[in-house]
This record gives sequence, structure tokens and C-alpha cells, in this order.
Amino acid sequence: MTTTDQITTNQTIDTLNNRVSIRDYTDEPLDDATLTLLLNAARRTPTSSNVQTYSFVVVRDPERKKTLAHLAGDQKHIEQAPVFVAVCADLNRVARGMALHGQTLATNTETTLISVIDAAIAGQSLALAAESLGLGTVMIGGMRNHPDQVAELLGLPEGVFVVYGLCIGHVAERTPQKPRLPDETVIHYETYQPASEEALHAYDAALAEHYRSVGRSTPDAAWTGFNARRLGTAPRPHMREFLEKHGFSLD
Amino acid sequence: MTTTDQITTNQTIDTLNNRVSIRDYTDEPLDDATLTLLLNAARRTPTSSNVQTYSFVVVRDPERKKTLAHLAGDQKHIEQAPVFVAVCADLNRVARGMALHGQTLATNTETTLISVIDAAIAGQSLALAAESLGLGTVMIGGMRNHPDQVAELLGLPEGVFVVYGLCIGHVAERTPQKPRLPDETVIHYETYQPASEEALHAYDAALAEHYRSVGRSTPDAAWTGFNARRLGTAPRPHMREFLEKHGFSLD
Repeated sequence: MTTTDQITTNQTIDTLNNRVSIRDYTDEPLDDATLTLLLNAARRTPTSSNVQTYSFVVVRDPERKKTLAHLAGDQKHIEQAPVFVAVCADLNRVARGMALHGQTLATNTETTLISVIDAAIAGQSLALAAESLGLGTVMIGGMRNHPDQVAELLGLPEGVFVVYGLCIGHVAERTPQKPRLPDETVIHYETYQPASEEALHAYDAALAEHYRSVGRSTPDAAWTGFNARRLGTAPRPHMREFLEKHGFSLD
Repeated sequence: MTTTDQITTNQTIDTLNNRVSIRDYTDEPLDDATLTLLLNAARRTPTSSNVQTYSFVVVRDPERKKTLAHLAGDQKHIEQAPVFVAVCADLNRVARGMALHGQTLATNTETTLISVIDAAIAGQSLALAAESLGLGTVMIGGMRNHPDQVAELLGLPEGVFVVYGLCIGHVAERTPQKPRLPDETVIHYETYQPASEEALHAYDAALAEHYRSVGRSTPDAAWTGFNARRLGTAPRPHMREFLEKHGFSLD
């Protein structure tokens, strides 16, 4: 631990503070011992009532990564990274255990939430463990673009779907950090305080300045305008039907 | 970094490997500088397309914590911990930003997933940051027991709900780690391999042995039987209606 300005920090906190998503990897492989170390560490993530409703599918086969890269909307870093982990919500295993006692898992919106949260947090532990070793990661929500084809490629049974993917590899190029929304719009004390127009405009300006500094074109209203153009239409409209077809109830 | 058995580990990985959920806290407060350090670090967690659809509501008021403890099913550690963070999915802020441009956020199952995942992973970063300083944490899914009353107590507007809570404080008593499911049932290579009956029985035995070692009564089939008795009835059946009433579509 080191102390700066009366605040004690450490390697974990520094890893978080310095992180950026990496979309450019070297061709250096990730050795098995390191991968096992990371996976084991992630398995200590808390899980709802010890139900452990998640799975990791580790993909290293170049052809399979290439297909996944394409299914995610041609994200070349999936192909480039030596390891891709499909972070899955998994109700299959607990249902199998229950079947040993003649019981059937009852599913609803809450069991879907439990498994999605279990998976999401385990995946974040895996990402942070990798980053703490100096490796790069990026989460791939694009696994939900074509969830049916992804499920087929990974041989996922009923009750398992890929919540997101995670590329892990050695960093070729690191991009500068984006500023985040102003603290007062995200961190609330005792009760929620809705974001003010001023704070949202301030973030638009900060994000525009960031884009200029990295030589990217700056859209009008870099955050609010970008979202206004993008989120007026609901994304991935197939997800409800996909989930219900694959054993995740939304009742 | 230290090297053991040819495997390089570090403080982040050790923090994960050694963690247990803490349900017994001392009365020592958590100072503001440390809390701010943790919250800032968690804010660097990745977020879907920089949409940042989560919020933290920090609760330190004893009366409010007492009410939350009761609503979670009388979990006294919520009252006992100096800090309780309600980790929220938040579609309200992005919708406000879009409204500045005359646009309305379209919601569906996918936007619900995006916000739940954004929140879940940011909360896990916050937990891990706290644990890396030697603090204890426990996640509280029981925030979804009475989500309406929790939302009212925290003043949550349309489009915000508590995905889970997080107690943070100084550890009074640490319990031994539970064994996790056998690796081969959770970690898959290239394609998914369904859990074998043998592996599930082996875990039942390992968990029963753990319970015996800590002097707790051991149910028959410590994992599969426990879940069979518990999950034949769908949990928290109010969640769908609650979400749809609060701006989270499941269409």
C-alpha cells in the first residue's frame, strides 16, 4: 500500500483507476498457468445463496474466435486476443442437481436476474484479475447480437446464454481514458438526486474535448446527442424471444 | 508481485482468492476519503457503449439502514455496517439526456439487461476495491424482496431500481470459505460440457464436509438437495410487475 495525499491506495485500486478497454492485442499467447490463475480467482466472486448460476466457456480455437468476431459485428479484437471467455448465465447446472431429487427448477424474471447478475460479476472479477497482471481486456456485449448462433457454436444447452464475452490478451495499443459522467449524477447520498441539465451539458463538453484530444470527430452533444440518436429505437429486439426459447423466463 | 510455484500472483488476485462475504462488522466508521477512493475506482468499470446506466446510492443514516435491513428480511449486518451502497440499474439519466434533444428512450428486455449488467459489474468493482483495503463486504440480493418500498425509501425515480445492495465495513468476524462447485462443471473449453452426476455428488459431499467443519447442521445433499427444496417455487414473483411499473420493459 502507498499513501498519497492522505489517501491509502493499492494495486487493486490503481488497476481500476488506470483501466481502459483494450481492442488491440499482440500475438503473444496467454499461458495456461496464468489463465487458470485468473479463472480460479474469479470463481471466488460472491454468488446468490451459493447457487453459482454462471459458467465460463474459454475459447482459444482460431476458427471459433473468428466466427464469434463476425457474429459480434466484425470485432477483430475477438479474433486477435489469444483468449476469449464467453461469460454465461447458467441455470442448467442447478436444474440438473435438482433433477437428482425429482425436482424441476421454477424460472421467472427473478431467476433470470439472479443468473445474469452471478455471471456479470464473476466476469468483472475475471477482467480485473487479468488487468491486475497488466493484461488487456474488453467486454463484448455484441455476443447478444446473434445469441442463437453463439449458443449453437458453443454447444450451450437449455438454460445457458452468453451474457457478454471477454477478450483477454497482451496489450498492443492502449487508448486514453474517456472521462466519466460527473460524480454527482452517478453517486447519490441517502436519496437519489436526478441529473441536472447543467451536469449533462458539462459531460457533453468534457466528452467532446476528449474526442478532440484523440483526433476523433466530435458529434453534437457528445453524450446526450449520441444517445438521443441511438437509443430512440430499442436495441436487440430479439432478446426476449431468445431468452424464453432458451429456458430463461421473463414472467 | 510474488511468484509461487511458477505462477505469478499479486494483491488483486490474492484479494479475490481470500475473499468471503462478511456479515459481522465492528462499529468503526468508514472515513469519507476512503469511501470516495472506492467509489471513484468503481466508476472506471467498463460500461456498455459508455452509456453508464447505473447509480450508487450511499446510505449511512442509521434509521434508513435499519429500515433497509428490515426490508431485506432482517439482515442485521445492513444496520451494522457503516456504509450501505444501493447498486442501481439507472435508465433515468440517459433518458433525461435524450429528452434534451426531444427523444424518448425506447426500452425492452435488452435495455433492462444493459442496465442490470452495468450496475452489477460496477458493484463488483466497488466490493473488490473495498476488500483490497482489508474491508469486508456482502452483497444483498434481499433488496429485491420489497423493491417498491426500497425505491420509495431511496427516492428512486422512474427507470431506477436496486439490483443489489452492498454492505461495506470493518470486519468483526470472518467465516471460513465455502468450497465452490468442481471446476469442470463451471469452466468449459471451446464448448459447454453439462455437469455430470458424479461431479454434482462430489460437490454435495465437499459442501457437507465444509458445513460439518464449521459446526453447522448438514442437509441431505448439501447443494443439490438444498436447491431442490428451495427452487421448485419461483422466487420473488413480484419482480416482473415491479420492473414494468418502474420503467424497465421486459418486451
